[in-house]
Amino acid sequence: MNAKRFHPALSVTDQAPIQVSASAVAEVVSRLEAQFGERFSKTAAMRERFGKDESFHASVPPDAVVTPKSTEEVSQIVKLCAEHGVPVIPYGTGTALEGHVAALYGGISINMQEMNDVIEVHDEDLDVVVQPGVTRKQLNQYLHDRGLFFPIDPGADASIGGMTACRASGTNAVRYGTMRENVLALTVVLADGRVIKTSRRARKSAAGYDLTRLFVGSEGTLGVITEITLKLYGIPEAISSAVCTFPDLDSAVGTVINTIQYGVPVARIELLDEAQIDAINRYSKTDLAVAPTLFLEFHGSTQGVAEQAQVVQELAADAGGSNFQWTTNTEERNRLWQARHDAAYACKALRPDGEIWATDVCVPISQLAECIRETQRDIKESNLVAPIVGHVGDGNFHLVLLVDKEDPEENERAQQLHERMVMRALAMGGTCTGEHGIGYGKLDFLIAEHGEAVSVMRAIKQALDPDNIMNPGKILRV
Amino acid sequence: MNAKRFHPALSVTDQAPIQVSASAVAEVVSRLEAQFGERFSKTAAMRERFGKDESFHASVPPDAVVTPKSTEEVSQIVKLCAEHGVPVIPYGTGTALEGHVAALYGGISINMQEMNDVIEVHDEDLDVVVQPGVTRKQLNQYLHDRGLFFPIDPGADASIGGMTACRASGTNAVRYGTMRENVLALTVVLADGRVIKTSRRARKSAAGYDLTRLFVGSEGTLGVITEITLKLYGIPEAISSAVCTFPDLDSAVGTVINTIQYGVPVARIELLDEAQIDAINRYSKTDLAVAPTLFLEFHGSTQGVAEQAQVVQELAADAGGSNFQWTTNTEERNRLWQARHDAAYACKALRPDGEIWATDVCVPISQLAECIRETQRDIKESNLVAPIVGHVGDGNFHLVLLVDKEDPEENERAQQLHERMVMRALAMGGTCTGEHGIGYGKLDFLIAEHGEAVSVMRAIKQALDPDNIMNPGKILRV
Repeated sequence: MNAKRFHPALSVTDQAPIQVSASAVAEVVSRLEAQFGERFSKTAAMRERFGKDESFHASVPPDAVVTPKSTEEVSQIVKLCAEHGVPVIPYGTGTALEGHVAALYGGISINMQEMNDVIEVHDEDLDVVVQPGVTRKQLNQYLHDRGLFFPIDPGADASIGGMTACRASGTNAVRYGTMRENVLALTVVLADGRVIKTSRRARKSAAGYDLTRLFVGSEGTLGVITEITLKLYGIPEAISSAVCTFPDLDSAVGTVINTIQYGVPVARIELLDEAQIDAINRYSKTDLAVAPTLFLEFHGSTQGVAEQAQVVQELAADAGGSNFQWTTNTEERNRLWQARHDAAYACKALRPDGEIWATDVCVPISQLAECIRETQRDIKESNLVAPIVGHVGDGNFHLVLLVDKEDPEENERAQQLHERMVMRALAMGGTCTGEHGIGYGKLDFLIAEHGEAVSVMRAIKQALDPDNIMNPGKILRV
Repeated sequence: MNAKRFHPALSVTDQAPIQVSASAVAEVVSRLEAQFGERFSKTAAMRERFGKDESFHASVPPDAVVTPKSTEEVSQIVKLCAEHGVPVIPYGTGTALEGHVAALYGGISINMQEMNDVIEVHDEDLDVVVQPGVTRKQLNQYLHDRGLFFPIDPGADASIGGMTACRASGTNAVRYGTMRENVLALTVVLADGRVIKTSRRARKSAAGYDLTRLFVGSEGTLGVITEITLKLYGIPEAISSAVCTFPDLDSAVGTVINTIQYGVPVARIELLDEAQIDAINRYSKTDLAVAPTLFLEFHGSTQGVAEQAQVVQELAADAGGSNFQWTTNTEERNRLWQARHDAAYACKALRPDGEIWATDVCVPISQLAECIRETQRDIKESNLVAPIVGHVGDGNFHLVLLVDKEDPEENERAQQLHERMVMRALAMGGTCTGEHGIGYGKLDFLIAEHGEAVSVMRAIKQALDPDNIMNPGKILRV
């Protein structure tokens, strides 16, 4: 990546490279093995698995994997690692996309999957306290009979701990916000093993620095999250879905802008570009019009969702949209959204031998149509296959590059295209990642985006983790 | 205050007491005077004014007041102060309530009131970039003709900079969130004069630590905010207001809980207790039923607000509420809410010679009725005058103590009552302040609330402001 050429000179330099001694690792490994027995592993297969997420980033295996069952055990593990200067990498479900769980400097992967209890549901307060290994689907199954749900849906059945650490977002964010808005409080094990609570269950507070938001999105680099308090919502009385085709990107995005300005509390609003629709037609044997298409979902009262759909239908028609279909019937809803649900598989099927490289940017919505259009032109000129799906209400879109990993020239073209897309988004007031995070795949883009503010991030990292043992090399370069 | 007895032992101690030398202050004062001319003042009257907020905290005057017009000038001022170890205290409108602007260690008050330009409005993106001296009413006047508004309403016509620094909230927070949810990005002058941008205009981002949220609510202790990007909203098509009387606190709060669980997107929902209604009857010569009363406001389409009011009317009736009145007519709305608007004046009039001591806590809403009820019993037993008004949708309520400042025994009773209320809120999973902030009035309660997490706040403060010149003694004790 050449994004380094966009870097300003920063006041605070990178942390010193960490030196992990082999004897320190051996000592930690043997002590953890003695303490955790069957909940410890250093087999090649386990190490390989825990060093890899769902992305194209190769596995970088940790020295061992340990599976704690309590905050107290996590604290003991971190204290031991801190004593010996051995890195700690928290692991949720491994569904991250920027190499977040790779053990770049070796160390101990902490597998949070057995800390998977829903601890307390407070129906009246619309909140829940969970352990980090609870997955979002598990949580919603648990909540269903109480008439409650947790809306954040990044696609994968990620763990709540991982979603918190990576500031996850997804299709529902336009209405419900991201993890940033939906985490009320955290229990965190710090880099020296101390345990803190970042906040209380109160809906708001003006008491001191917002530590909750500091740990949300910190990707395991400041501490290990061991308990999460989340906001919940009542399952809406009615849900309706809609689909509409547009003559071009501007009319589709313009409809989104007008919908939001009108105050329609749309729950999901997804854009699929021509390449994505074409891929779905091939994969699902459908004959959808190959054109920019919006998929919408409305939550509310029966009367409310009907009103919302009607307003959007009128706005879409004004913009030249056609074939507007909507329904509240569950089966019909699933049929309407089938194409959206098939998008990932359809991408993969475009090139079964290719590697999927999913990346995302987010721009102010006024810039979205232009950003996508220029990216599409660039894809064509680069002779690459790369459909686009967007969480368009937020200005966030995903590029799914399909590349032959064995072809260095094609990889280079893909890298160049990617870099131009990110720098285009930054030039438009956007961010290098709306929801995937930095991991170690976007380190240079973080600096291109934030400039001197990265010095402040480094100062905080150094203050809270002076020996750089917490997931080193993620977010900030070592 | 005796809250210190609730303190745990913390790992990170307070910062060393700052030593500000008289000659350093003299040097900074003379250089600022030379540079800023008429935009500089060291008169006793100006110093007195800028050392005082709207609270009962006495004025603690700065050594001088300087009025910059740009980020660059703020950076110059901070650099100069940093060079000489002289404290810097940002000043918005002085409407804070916990002594936030008091110059506890002397230094320079930076008056932001001439940095009051609305820099850019982005209609399609629903955001605006403002200088910190813009007040919320000024902003909403500016936006009105574009059909947009900024909802956060803490009561006072505070500056956006001050509202950001203090994580302001207010009556609309139940629907629109607080400053925490509505600030997209900041320009900040750091403690050494460097300037950073914390984020871009994109609606969401997963790029690095959430510096925006770190500075929101930092009360000027980490840097001076010189530019703010805010989310905006379309002015709703219709607004309706409602008022309803309840037989007791439980039925009023129960109605609020059911309203929120039902998913009614209520914009404001305010509770006035019997003492507050009684005060209003005396002040405004009204004959409102002296009972817990809810004041509501709904935003949406004409059909939507009618539906919302109808649902709440039914829920209120189920809970025993009576005399439910609602209207969409502007004059009628003002008449219905008049009592709420008169609340502050009515409190003052209860005891014209008394000092107003306004304080707040916030608890999970399931605990709210009990927290208020126990506080009311305590007020009665303490033989004090203290009406209660609550932003009840958030579980946040205000106690307005009216005390004779000259009477030490009464002051002590008030302090004890206050302490019991805060500790009760903490025991219920609440916070020592929902929206007023810590300033230097609630330093001990911050520790009682957060415990070891305060060590993390101190570590961050020391990393970003090692010489402790940024509003020293606020949030964290020196």
